[in-house]
Amino acid sequence: MKHTITVHFQNSFNALSRIIGLFSGRGFSIDSVSFGEAKEPGMARMTITTRGDERIIEQINNQLNKIVDVVNVKDLTYEPFVERELALVKVTSTAEARSEIIEVVNVFRAKIIDISPQSLTIEVTGKADKIDAAIGMFRPFGLLEVARTGSVALTREFKGET
Amino acid sequence: MKHTITVHFQNSFNALSRIIGLFSGRGFSIDSVSFGEAKEPGMARMTITTRGDERIIEQINNQLNKIVDVVNVKDLTYEPFVERELALVKVTSTAEARSEIIEVVNVFRAKIIDISPQSLTIEVTGKADKIDAAIGMFRPFGLLEVARTGSVALTREFKGET
Repeated sequence: MKHTITVHFQNSFNALSRIIGLFSGRGFSIDSVSFGEAKEPGMARMTITTRGDERIIEQINNQLNKIVDVVNVKDLTYEPFVERELALVKVTSTAEARSEIIEVVNVFRAKIIDISPQSLTIEVTGKADKIDAAIGMFRPFGLLEVARTGSVALTREFKGET
Repeated sequence: MKHTITVHFQNSFNALSRIIGLFSGRGFSIDSVSFGEAKEPGMARMTITTRGDERIIEQINNQLNKIVDVVNVKDLTYEPFVERELALVKVTSTAEARSEIIEVVNVFRAKIIDISPQSLTIEVTGKADKIDAAIGMFRPFGLLEVARTGSVALTREFKGET
């Protein structure tokens, strides 16, 4: 089952290294990891998307909570949340193919952020499956490079009855 | 000096753990780390933004290249590149404050992706300093949560004379 876990911790490579270390060697598949400053100075927030056995996820949650620098661990899996990631995609583009690529860019509400006579670099954001679909559409033109950030996630606020 | 380093490697938590481990304990400040699938199946691409002594960065480059799963290490610092990150920002928003927040959202070409009677969740993309500026503008309304992906970077293709 897919799990989206957020970890709030004191920002250091050391803490980051220990958190990642907990996941390694356990045969988890990583869908994505992203990591950046949180709203409080000196704090970081990591989002890990992974697939793994329920019981092992629970063990990891417990072990994460024992790391001194970790302030908070949350498994978002069982509540509504919004998630987004960003990808930069560099595509081969001759002048002839350009308008066809731009059509795909528009469908995905993506942005062209760099251009050369032989290429376009595109910024696209969305859930992981939208990014997958966009990359799938750009692939036939010739992918030169792809860089994805990994997902970040926040819980939805609206908790009322619908 | 700020360094933007990309590492291309065989996707596993184990490799990720070893790469992060090389940076930890060396007193580096991390600006950001991001990590996701590369264009080739089974491959991942990590972008690390850090500040550190030139000599130590060189040592780390050398050590990264010795990890079996690492295919390629590139320090983008000395060539032109585009970089982007994504942030989700959840802001306190009463009905009265909403239009003022939406003005800021429009200035940053950001998007509102969730709304509740008490809050707005905003997606904003750009270079790290633009994200900093956006978060700075949203802060007075009351930040509930911030999740940043960390930067991803690709070299610019246009290498000709300007």
